Amino acid sequence: MIRLTSAALLLAAFIASPVAAQDWRLVIHGGAGTIARENMTPERDVEIRAALTLALETGSEVLANGGTAIEAVEATILVLEDDPNFNAGRGAVFTAAGRNELDASIMDGRTRDAGAVAGVTATRHPIALARAVMENSPHVMMAAGGADQFSLEAGLEQAPPEWFYTQERYDQLQRFLARDLSDASDLAGADYKFGTVGAVAIDMEGNLAAGTSTGGTTGKLYGRVGDSPVIGAGTYADNRACAVSATGAGEYYIREGVAHEICARIRFLGESPQQAADFVQAETLELGGTGGVIVLGADGDWAFSFNTAGMYRGMAEPGSEPLVAIYGDE
Amino acid sequence: MIRLTSAALLLAAFIASPVAAQDWRLVIHGGAGTIARENMTPERDVEIRAALTLALETGSEVLANGGTAIEAVEATILVLEDDPNFNAGRGAVFTAAGRNELDASIMDGRTRDAGAVAGVTATRHPIALARAVMENSPHVMMAAGGADQFSLEAGLEQAPPEWFYTQERYDQLQRFLARDLSDASDLAGADYKFGTVGAVAIDMEGNLAAGTSTGGTTGKLYGRVGDSPVIGAGTYADNRACAVSATGAGEYYIREGVAHEICARIRFLGESPQQAADFVQAETLELGGTGGVIVLGADGDWAFSFNTAGMYRGMAEPGSEPLVAIYGDE
Repeated sequence: MIRLTSAALLLAAFIASPVAAQDWRLVIHGGAGTIARENMTPERDVEIRAALTLALETGSEVLANGGTAIEAVEATILVLEDDPNFNAGRGAVFTAAGRNELDASIMDGRTRDAGAVAGVTATRHPIALARAVMENSPHVMMAAGGADQFSLEAGLEQAPPEWFYTQERYDQLQRFLARDLSDASDLAGADYKFGTVGAVAIDMEGNLAAGTSTGGTTGKLYGRVGDSPVIGAGTYADNRACAVSATGAGEYYIREGVAHEICARIRFLGESPQQAADFVQAETLELGGTGGVIVLGADGDWAFSFNTAGMYRGMAEPGSEPLVAIYGDE
Repeated sequence: MIRLTSAALLLAAFIASPVAAQDWRLVIHGGAGTIARENMTPERDVEIRAALTLALETGSEVLANGGTAIEAVEATILVLEDDPNFNAGRGAVFTAAGRNELDASIMDGRTRDAGAVAGVTATRHPIALARAVMENSPHVMMAAGGADQFSLEAGLEQAPPEWFYTQERYDQLQRFLARDLSDASDLAGADYKFGTVGAVAIDMEGNLAAGTSTGGTTGKLYGRVGDSPVIGAGTYADNRACAVSATGAGEYYIREGVAHEICARIRFLGESPQQAADFVQAETLELGGTGGVIVLGADGDWAFSFNTAGMYRGMAEPGSEPLVAIYGDE
């Protein structure tokens, strides 16, 4: 029989706490795809890094002030949705019918509460709408016209089609339509879907959260739902395992159940976030899907993993400058 | 060093095959809820058992003739969708707005190809539409108007609102609206969602498939998406693990990722279908969600699991009469 002293019991209680109170952390992505140095202008490189830094700073402030992981994830994604450089909110890609249909989801690792919207067209911040579905409706997922109507009734900020419009994304659609692409392998072409955004956070209480927001893929059929609003595919958070946000060829990410599968490997096989993320990315690639994920474990351990040339990404934690990166070699 | 004789090698090759050629199997459900003997009339008991038997016989014929698991799952669910006793296709429940919005999904365990539709209103057989999305579109999931449009263009059989209408379901909506229920705990009330249908099959080649079809919950908000069309929640199939179809309080089943979680426990923890199903059902109940699942393992092992008073259910295999059951004690 082992007798524990009071000190040992105190120590044990301390160790059982998921993270020490100061160890908040925030990890973000802004899409994965065929981004190589030779395709980027120096100006755009600087612009993207500034945008990622701003998003990290915004979310970090929430966490540093004792805010929850859910609050930080939402605040971070709000910034990225408003930035036309990313395929989420303003700057979203166009559907085959020439519309912007936005998807988003958010999940609280403490309770595994979740909210998701698919195919919404009139809400400035789809991530805020996903949170409203989680907190103010009896449902987890709402789609299309019904989700737009719920947004109005819930008092979310509305935006006209012009708000989401960017010339660059519109020109992409025209190039896409001229090529008359219609099969999944073409849709996997990174130029046409690049720029989904996501964030995962762990707060001072050790709670995890994850969120993802996207315009989907250029030229997608009216009504197509990708992985971003599918809980378990593009987004998952579970305090027992990890928080994940994915960005990739959505159809493959749904079939693999990427976010849920990463959490399952961490919980059941004891893998680290990096091991689980790399393994699941490789499995998804076997199905045919490229992309990337960000993962944050319950102990604060974290990972980027992508099998594309680059992924817009960043990480912030107390006491150091935010890390931002674009290419495979930073 | 161990030397194997030719006979031993042949035996090893035989054992490595997932199932012997004759071991097809089909497991179905028609919803889980507060069905107890005292609430059923003898006539309805007979009618439900006959409907389940007809569905099992239809799918069994496909499998016995060498058809694929996907073909059998679709054929089985077509029968249940046409039967007004179940909350899928004809006989679907009504939304708060007095419409029928149908969800369905299907998944092939061999390739992990999948198709899903949410909130469709004009297709006689949502499960056939889910299969068309899987086979004839570049997408996995389509929702609402876009899915209805795809259905038309793909030449699926269309049906007017009257086709789906039943007096019993309409009266349920009126009772629901009179109670002015609006929170998730009330939506979990089994009378208002009972009757989702699903099937899982393993064919002579040892391939798995799963499918689910539903009208969702009575009084659901326009645009609500439940677990049935969410790959990983209501439906999952993976030859490496199992095929699952769920029927329960959809919001909780999405948050747990029920179908994917059961497959993960079988793959990573080596649990049997019954162990994994019972464990995940218990975890989902902790979140607040009641319901049931059917599971079929890669080795043909199978399970029913439900934490409600009853679940309409059945199983067929070569060489014996189909098994059908309704209550906890059969």
